[in-house]
Amino acid sequence: MKFKLGCQLNYSVAASSTFIFNLSVVEKKHQRILQEKLQIEPSMDYEEYVSPRMENRYLRVYVPQGDLQVSYQATVDLFYRDEDPSSISENPPDKLPLETLHYLYPSRYCESDRLMRLAQNEFGNLIPDYSRVTAICNWIYDNVTYLSGSTNQHTSAYDTATERAGVCRDFAHLGIAFCRALNIPARFVTGYAYNLEPQDFHAYFEAYLGDRWYLFDPTRLAPCNGLIRIGIGRDAADVAFATIFGDVQMNYKDVFVEAVPDQDGKTPELPDYTNRAIALI
Amino acid sequence: MKFKLGCQLNYSVAASSTFIFNLSVVEKKHQRILQEKLQIEPSMDYEEYVSPRMENRYLRVYVPQGDLQVSYQATVDLFYRDEDPSSISENPPDKLPLETLHYLYPSRYCESDRLMRLAQNEFGNLIPDYSRVTAICNWIYDNVTYLSGSTNQHTSAYDTATERAGVCRDFAHLGIAFCRALNIPARFVTGYAYNLEPQDFHAYFEAYLGDRWYLFDPTRLAPCNGLIRIGIGRDAADVAFATIFGDVQMNYKDVFVEAVPDQDGKTPELPDYTNRAIALI
Amino acid sequence: MKFKLGCQLNYSVAASSTFIFNLSVVEKKHQRILQEKLQIEPSMDYEEYVSPRMENRYLRVYVPQGDLQVSYQATVDLFYRDEDPSSISENPPDKLPLETLHYLYPSRYCESDRLMRLAQNEFGNLIPDYSRVTAICNWIYDNVTYLSGSTNQHTSAYDTATERAGVCRDFAHLGIAFCRALNIPARFVTGYAYNLEPQDFHAYFEAYLGDRWYLFDPTRLAPCNGLIRIGIGRDAADVAFATIFGDVQMNYKDVFVEAVPDQDGKTPELPDYTNRAIALI
Amino acid sequence: MKFKLGCQLNYSVAASSTFIFNLSVVEKKHQRILQEKLQIEPSMDYEEYVSPRMENRYLRVYVPQGDLQVSYQATVDLFYRDEDPSSISENPPDKLPLETLHYLYPSRYCESDRLMRLAQNEFGNLIPDYSRVTAICNWIYDNVTYLSGSTNQHTSAYDTATERAGVCRDFAHLGIAFCRALNIPARFVTGYAYNLEPQDFHAYFEAYLGDRWYLFDPTRLAPCNGLIRIGIGRDAADVAFATIFGDVQMNYKDVFVEAVPDQDGKTPELPDYTNRAIALI
Repeated sequence: MKFKLGCQLNYSVAASSTFIFNLSVVEKKHQRILQEKLQIEPSMDYEEYVSPRMENRYLRVYVPQGDLQVSYQATVDLFYRDEDPSSISENPPDKLPLETLHYLYPSRYCESDRLMRLAQNEFGNLIPDYSRVTAICNWIYDNVTYLSGSTNQHTSAYDTATERAGVCRDFAHLGIAFCRALNIPARFVTGYAYNLEPQDFHAYFEAYLGDRWYLFDPTRLAPCNGLIRIGIGRDAADVAFATIFGDVQMNYKDVFVEAVPDQDGKTPELPDYTNRAIALI
Repeated sequence: MKFKLGCQLNYSVAASSTFIFNLSVVEKKHQRILQEKLQIEPSMDYEEYVSPRMENRYLRVYVPQGDLQVSYQATVDLFYRDEDPSSISENPPDKLPLETLHYLYPSRYCESDRLMRLAQNEFGNLIPDYSRVTAICNWIYDNVTYLSGSTNQHTSAYDTATERAGVCRDFAHLGIAFCRALNIPARFVTGYAYNLEPQDFHAYFEAYLGDRWYLFDPTRLAPCNGLIRIGIGRDAADVAFATIFGDVQMNYKDVFVEAVPDQDGKTPELPDYTNRAIALI
Repeated sequence: MKFKLGCQLNYSVAASSTFIFNLSVVEKKHQRILQEKLQIEPSMDYEEYVSPRMENRYLRVYVPQGDLQVSYQATVDLFYRDEDPSSISENPPDKLPLETLHYLYPSRYCESDRLMRLAQNEFGNLIPDYSRVTAICNWIYDNVTYLSGSTNQHTSAYDTATERAGVCRDFAHLGIAFCRALNIPARFVTGYAYNLEPQDFHAYFEAYLGDRWYLFDPTRLAPCNGLIRIGIGRDAADVAFATIFGDVQMNYKDVFVEAVPDQDGKTPELPDYTNRAIALI
Repeated sequence: MKFKLGCQLNYSVAASSTFIFNLSVVEKKHQRILQEKLQIEPSMDYEEYVSPRMENRYLRVYVPQGDLQVSYQATVDLFYRDEDPSSISENPPDKLPLETLHYLYPSRYCESDRLMRLAQNEFGNLIPDYSRVTAICNWIYDNVTYLSGSTNQHTSAYDTATERAGVCRDFAHLGIAFCRALNIPARFVTGYAYNLEPQDFHAYFEAYLGDRWYLFDPTRLAPCNGLIRIGIGRDAADVAFATIFGDVQMNYKDVFVEAVPDQDGKTPELPDYTNRAIALI
């Protein structure tokens, strides 16, 4: 299924500043970039850095005083793998691929070390397979209120577990923290989300089950098979859409995602909520 | 029912220090002190201060370098009021006695302001009467593990709500915080507890329901009708059994409580767990 | 010196709600209420409760759905005692009046128990008298940025000690926490403040030194001898200008304070910053 | 300079468990492993995993019920690069190698996002070069008390900044958090430390300055040129010497480091405190 997506960001830069953007989608076997365009106005040089393990694309630009407008637009072809979740098990610690260990450890916004008992109490007796992560997402959906403005950039899973309100990044952080507390590797994902209302950058998470990473979105705000990945990290600290060093104000942000009709003009089967397990690889 | 109770505390005082003890039981209409003895060795002067609202008895003693031994022993006659809990309602905020407001506000170890949503999610739909506080105690008993040494003097209800382990003071703090988050006045109580194993100073809480304060002990470690009150406060900060200003080490602590046979030598009806609502007034 | 002061608060009440206001000034020997008027529109009954120890005046009003307007206005005559600070000492713990102990303990927003070392490191070697509390205020003024909107109702002294930004209530909480960590009783005060810009309810603190409570305002936003007291408490939890139980929105808040000319039309000596120690008693 | 070092760890394993050890030293151009031996008793298989970016060596072993003894011993030849610190500058954000960005972001135990103002207040006006990181280490040494048992595995830089006590890992975390708050990449390092008293695994940190990573140890417990590296990570979460999945108790831990005489029997120049800048590459 093809999507056209992108964003526009406008800033006022009070004094020369450095921006690191992470808003370009990644190229994966099942997420093909058909066309892509980045425009920076006024025109200036930028560097791109692709992190070796995570494949995130970071753009660094050094901006003098004045206005900055960044416009990104891409067309991607997305082939999500979907599977029967009943056949997907967790891995015991002695069987986990060692390169996933990194995602078992607590991180800035996912203090899994402090949520061990809570996770054990709530999910410890469940069957150790895909359905346990679904149970985690259901718990979050049922117990945490989605409330814009209720949290800030310092809010972590420890807070959300108790304060019970947040936005997509908080929902993802809590899902990740619960997974790690149960020895399930989990990582934070940012992306463009088809049918998200209102449109914005979205955050969700992936858990390592069976032999791959599966997508989960405890917010239920957009179907998982309509998520186009930007970046992955331990948590939001790794994949801010913009990290800014300097005295800068954002004046405007617009994000868009639309399904692209097939070449024969037929509308494709659109992303929709599903009980299938969704993976990007 | 009569109880003989007391404690012995031994300290090494490295340099002259001030102690404020709160270990004497209070005299109430239904908790009569029949006999009482406080011994400080070496013998020295002390001041007693009874806080006007809470009736806590604080002893202040200024101790030079050396050893200090404090022995307290009392016989009390205890007449708990017990009632049918089904007739006891919560008070809406416009009907609460204004002198209980003080116990609605968050305090050092009971951050009810941060537990509003959790309390609403878990208990918001329950009938607003005595049974709701029982539900809070059951929740704590079911979800928090009693584990000596798992917490310290900085641990608060916010921590315990998430970390799910603690001791009696943590259980009481969480019960208080949940009550306050639901607009039920609640206060911290310390006391001697019949049948507590191992013996120690105990902590529990009272909630204001109907027209009086009722006792609750979410630890289920001792029957509520065998609790002999020392002090009440907003939380543990107000009623430490010893507040010490100086370089002091505690070497020994012993606490004891025993039921006293009637004068005719018959053993009285001993305290036991009950479904009745227990109040001290 | 005479002041005319007051406030107006407008609310939309979505469903019947209970308000507890603490916005009336207290009557003290040196703060005389010459005239006072409270208006509630639409007209309705209210209860007043004066807390026995702290003398705060709480107004409770039960409001049906609709609009609420509360207007308060008073004229007070204020005679601050001012003293030479060089003669004012701290009290060692064995000499403190026992009724001030209450203000040595940590509270919700003043976690003095967690700031012991920081307070010792920064202020432990200073002379234990009035000048040490001045040093605390100077430290706060120098190290914490006054920044509207940087904190919220959950922010505590522990946060402010590290995050180094806040508003008047955060400045007061940190001052109190440092004092308590050094065994100086300290309490939170709310009031109307002459010359505060922009006008609002103000928060400052009092420390018990010598034989009375002295005023300190680490914000330096208004002279201490122009502060007209509303309430005192352990911290902001005790003296919110409005505690609301219900679904209510505040639409308007206006606070005013003005100096009243003498009867002979002469302008009195206006409050101003001073190095004298100021006390209300 | 050659060192012989190692450790012995004994565990009782209540039920079959998985261990991930990170206690083997890394092989670097300037840290050559001359000889190395790992013994596990009872004998059993293990996997080794070397993390691609950080080169940490993780050993995973799945252990049945019973006793486990792990003995590690190595001889390394260490050639620290030492430089004149006066020539080493910080890099502005637009010049930092993009692969160091990862170490600018906050992590579990280094919440640099919450220490921005404190870092600016204390170090913001210093010259942006090597001496600023030295100033950070001096501040930590002067303001934080090294106190065994004062912290636990949940303690973070945010806590240490305020509570002012900790052990080597807390000192390193705070140093890292301050560096990141000033836009200096910083990472956590574990190692064997010559002359550490008492011997144990040690933790320190590296900051990226000029064109490489330099070592800093704010504890001043061991000379930087006597540190033999085990692992690097964002913070202690990445490089625990043992991560254990199961019901296990540690019964014994012994760590040793000794200087090895030259082949001609002469004692080499031993590690010692220096004002030179030390780097491992």
